[in-house]
Amino acid sequence: MFITFEGLDGSGKSTQAELLRSRLEADGEDVVSTREPGGTELGEKIRDLVLHGGHVTPWAEALLYAAARAQHVDEVIAPALERGASVICDRYVDSSVAYQGVARGLGLERVLDLNLAAVGGLMPDRTFLLALDVVRLPERLRREPDRLERESGDFHARADAGYRELAARFPERIVVLDGALPAETIAEEVYGALRVRS
Amino acid sequence: MFITFEGLDGSGKSTQAELLRSRLEADGEDVVSTREPGGTELGEKIRDLVLHGGHVTPWAEALLYAAARAQHVDEVIAPALERGASVICDRYVDSSVAYQGVARGLGLERVLDLNLAAVGGLMPDRTFLLALDVVRLPERLRREPDRLERESGDFHARADAGYRELAARFPERIVVLDGALPAETIAEEVYGALRVRS
Repeated sequence: MFITFEGLDGSGKSTQAELLRSRLEADGEDVVSTREPGGTELGEKIRDLVLHGGHVTPWAEALLYAAARAQHVDEVIAPALERGASVICDRYVDSSVAYQGVARGLGLERVLDLNLAAVGGLMPDRTFLLALDVVRLPERLRREPDRLERESGDFHARADAGYRELAARFPERIVVLDGALPAETIAEEVYGALRVRS
Repeated sequence: MFITFEGLDGSGKSTQAELLRSRLEADGEDVVSTREPGGTELGEKIRDLVLHGGHVTPWAEALLYAAARAQHVDEVIAPALERGASVICDRYVDSSVAYQGVARGLGLERVLDLNLAAVGGLMPDRTFLLALDVVRLPERLRREPDRLERESGDFHARADAGYRELAARFPERIVVLDGALPAETIAEEVYGALRVRS
């Protein structure tokens, strides 16, 4: 099973990915937990280029993320799924669609198509979107923001709108959760949603 | 005017790009001479990742080149054309279509579409394709080959076939020249072809 977590930075994605990994491992499952951008040696280098480099144009940014993703699928995600492991990924195609497609204005369809080509059509079985009031994000992010995180609140509001558009479009894949709830409560909802399916 | 040179490594592209630059400058033209992958700070870093890094999947490779190209257009090519300069570029969209689209088998149309999105539709006014017998390439390349150059002769033959397919498809843009001719002869043909147009 291929599971992704999505949401704005500070929404609690990484915490939930980690809680789910522990729980599935406690159940005896073979779990591969990974993240984007990154997840491979090439991907980490690309992540550095995008987040900490100088000026990057919107299309270059979208293409770099897609390149890292293509490598990630090929090296990590597809092999793990093939051997029967569950894969938990912190950000995936939906992130690019929300941030580059909608927030940067490159176009939802174009960025989705580009990414579907990059991943050879491999989409998650289930995606958890941690939704949160955009105004509450800065207080939740307790570290130095990177280049994307320093974008204006407007940018994050547009990415949030992109996520909600995706959730409306793919209701069978994307489960929207209230990111303002306590982490343990969200973790129960995630685990419950996965058990319902299987 | 936006002019590109295309062909396999060792076909004499760089020599011709340089000869044309000198000639146009001698005519008093404002000329910007650049190359791909590279041409910008981000592009050079991407070039290093692709050519000298470890394993890179075919889609990641195509997307990295397209990312470098998007940045190159935005930072270098479009601003130069806007101020009225002529731009000479050693490799551009056609390279990705021939190498990643055809030689790597990702598909001519998909790689062309991806690149047209990356460059916002900006294609050259004129492209010179230096065609050469593939078997004669190794003796022409007088330096340590990079990762792409170490590919099998088969790979280069497929890229050559990709170039010829492009030339057949865009006959008004792409001028095919015999790369086996003396450099000075080719340079005359290039200059002549450009004068006819203007």
